[in-house]
Amino acid sequence: MSIKRYSVAVAGATGAVGNEMISILEEREFPVTEIKLLASDRSEGKKLEFGGKDITVTKTDSNSFNGIDIALFSAGADRSKEFASLAVKAGAIVIDNSSAFRMAPEVPLVVPEVNPHAIARHKGIIANPNCSTIQMVVALKPIHDAVRIKRIVVSTYQSVSGTGKEAIEELSQETRDIFNCREVKCQVYPHQIAFNCLPQIDTFEENRYTKEEMKMVNETRKILEDDTIAITATAVRVPVFYGHSESVNIETEKKLTADEARELLSNASGVKVVDNIDALEYPLAVKAASKDEVFVGRIREDESIEKGLNLWIVSDNIRKGAALNAIQIAEILIGV
Amino acid sequence: MSIKRYSVAVAGATGAVGNEMISILEEREFPVTEIKLLASDRSEGKKLEFGGKDITVTKTDSNSFNGIDIALFSAGADRSKEFASLAVKAGAIVIDNSSAFRMAPEVPLVVPEVNPHAIARHKGIIANPNCSTIQMVVALKPIHDAVRIKRIVVSTYQSVSGTGKEAIEELSQETRDIFNCREVKCQVYPHQIAFNCLPQIDTFEENRYTKEEMKMVNETRKILEDDTIAITATAVRVPVFYGHSESVNIETEKKLTADEARELLSNASGVKVVDNIDALEYPLAVKAASKDEVFVGRIREDESIEKGLNLWIVSDNIRKGAALNAIQIAEILIGV
Repeated sequence: MSIKRYSVAVAGATGAVGNEMISILEEREFPVTEIKLLASDRSEGKKLEFGGKDITVTKTDSNSFNGIDIALFSAGADRSKEFASLAVKAGAIVIDNSSAFRMAPEVPLVVPEVNPHAIARHKGIIANPNCSTIQMVVALKPIHDAVRIKRIVVSTYQSVSGTGKEAIEELSQETRDIFNCREVKCQVYPHQIAFNCLPQIDTFEENRYTKEEMKMVNETRKILEDDTIAITATAVRVPVFYGHSESVNIETEKKLTADEARELLSNASGVKVVDNIDALEYPLAVKAASKDEVFVGRIREDESIEKGLNLWIVSDNIRKGAALNAIQIAEILIGV
Repeated sequence: MSIKRYSVAVAGATGAVGNEMISILEEREFPVTEIKLLASDRSEGKKLEFGGKDITVTKTDSNSFNGIDIALFSAGADRSKEFASLAVKAGAIVIDNSSAFRMAPEVPLVVPEVNPHAIARHKGIIANPNCSTIQMVVALKPIHDAVRIKRIVVSTYQSVSGTGKEAIEELSQETRDIFNCREVKCQVYPHQIAFNCLPQIDTFEENRYTKEEMKMVNETRKILEDDTIAITATAVRVPVFYGHSESVNIETEKKLTADEARELLSNASGVKVVDNIDALEYPLAVKAASKDEVFVGRIREDESIEKGLNLWIVSDNIRKGAALNAIQIAEILIGV
């Protein structure tokens, strides 16, 4: 019996996440019959390798999705709004990495380790959560199931790759400019990112929180299917290329000791506990880069409240935080 | 009438903080009659400039403090333990930047904007708090006075200069090695600091917190003279040269709106509010470097609790976090 194979389109194929999606499709031997690499006019004609062949990138237009089974979108919210429904009409199932549809009630927002069951109720579009949310909920889900999380206070340490390729280049260029005593020119970020921390990710909302911070609040509640969890977030960009780190403080309904949390997380899907402080081992962005797991360490009881824990959660924001999560959703869709 | 002038010794004169102490004594025209620059054997004979003259660094020994009025120590806890009481016996008042005496009940732990009154009860030694604590309490004191702080959850983004000169060199060297495809060698830190975040500052304690994290807990309570404040901290080293940033979440007894907090902090001693999000202005480590103030921004109500605030607090860890704070103490001592 032959395996069923699928026509897959990657919209935003030339971006940091699109590139990674293509690699992961290959790595995980996703049963692809045909792949279509889509991007904006600017990248039309560029060639990218897939399965040992050069594939020409084509411009995304209203006909791009004819014959496509699965469309992986990572080209920004505007592109998703413009093309996702067209793709669905053409018969594709869309897995969208942008923020366009995440909070739409009819669109499942899915992290496979957390709420795979939500996939079943899709109406053509499934949303991939924000990178900083994904890694946090993978680590918190087993704890929430065991002792119910009442409140989360999170501060992030997010890498520039979350912004995209041009931000990776900006950190690199600024760093070289500083070492060569040249003036630093900021184009992607409003301020110097090299050797600095920017307490702003995305734009500001009415309540003075950034969009990124409110994504962590709202998406976490939707994915954990619990609107009673109180969450406050501070999202910070740091001069790191790959890998987001998060300092997460939680208050739980029932007491969970640090040892119990370590035990629980050691058996959790998609999680790797790195918490051997005697050997000075804890999760690190540079070690998480190009890995699939969400790494959790510095697990300790919060002595300032009766039932609380502190955790340090690190993951590759481009892989688990975006591309891998999307392809895991696709794998569930096709029943792999 | 002539101003009284003082013999001042700087122990640890060749270190990052010692250097800054010398500059600040000059900048603020501290009434120095004679300055003695002390260091370890290694730096003996080195020359440093003060008041337009080259001063030869001498080795710290039991006779170093004869005739000294004020001894500024910044040579590590072991040196302070070895020499501080000798200096006091020789008649000097010691202002110690190390952790050696900070928690000793008979030693005042002082931040001039917060608890200057504590200086009066000194018995020869006055301790300068840890850098990450100083900037936090300067910002929190006016809030604590107004609405009482019940709980603090803080995550830090600390620069390498807090470790010392050799750490500044390590970040610089690692960065250059990475750009030149050379292997990264870690000597000061246990892991790569360039383009990475290290969730460890100082060594680990029994309760799995680091010494730095517990300093923030214990020193904050001592300086604010309130043992009822619940505090939990996560201290993280980031690839920044100068300036510590802190994401601080507080819960208060009485409600304080973000507008009220901004107003309160705008009038607070040693604080500068930078919180114009429409112009994308907020405190930044690179802008705080070589400034005296503690910068506070991203002031917003924490929507996860009834009475809470989030703050982003940044300061130059070598100046206000160490050298400047010590010299401000000395100024109070001599009644400037």
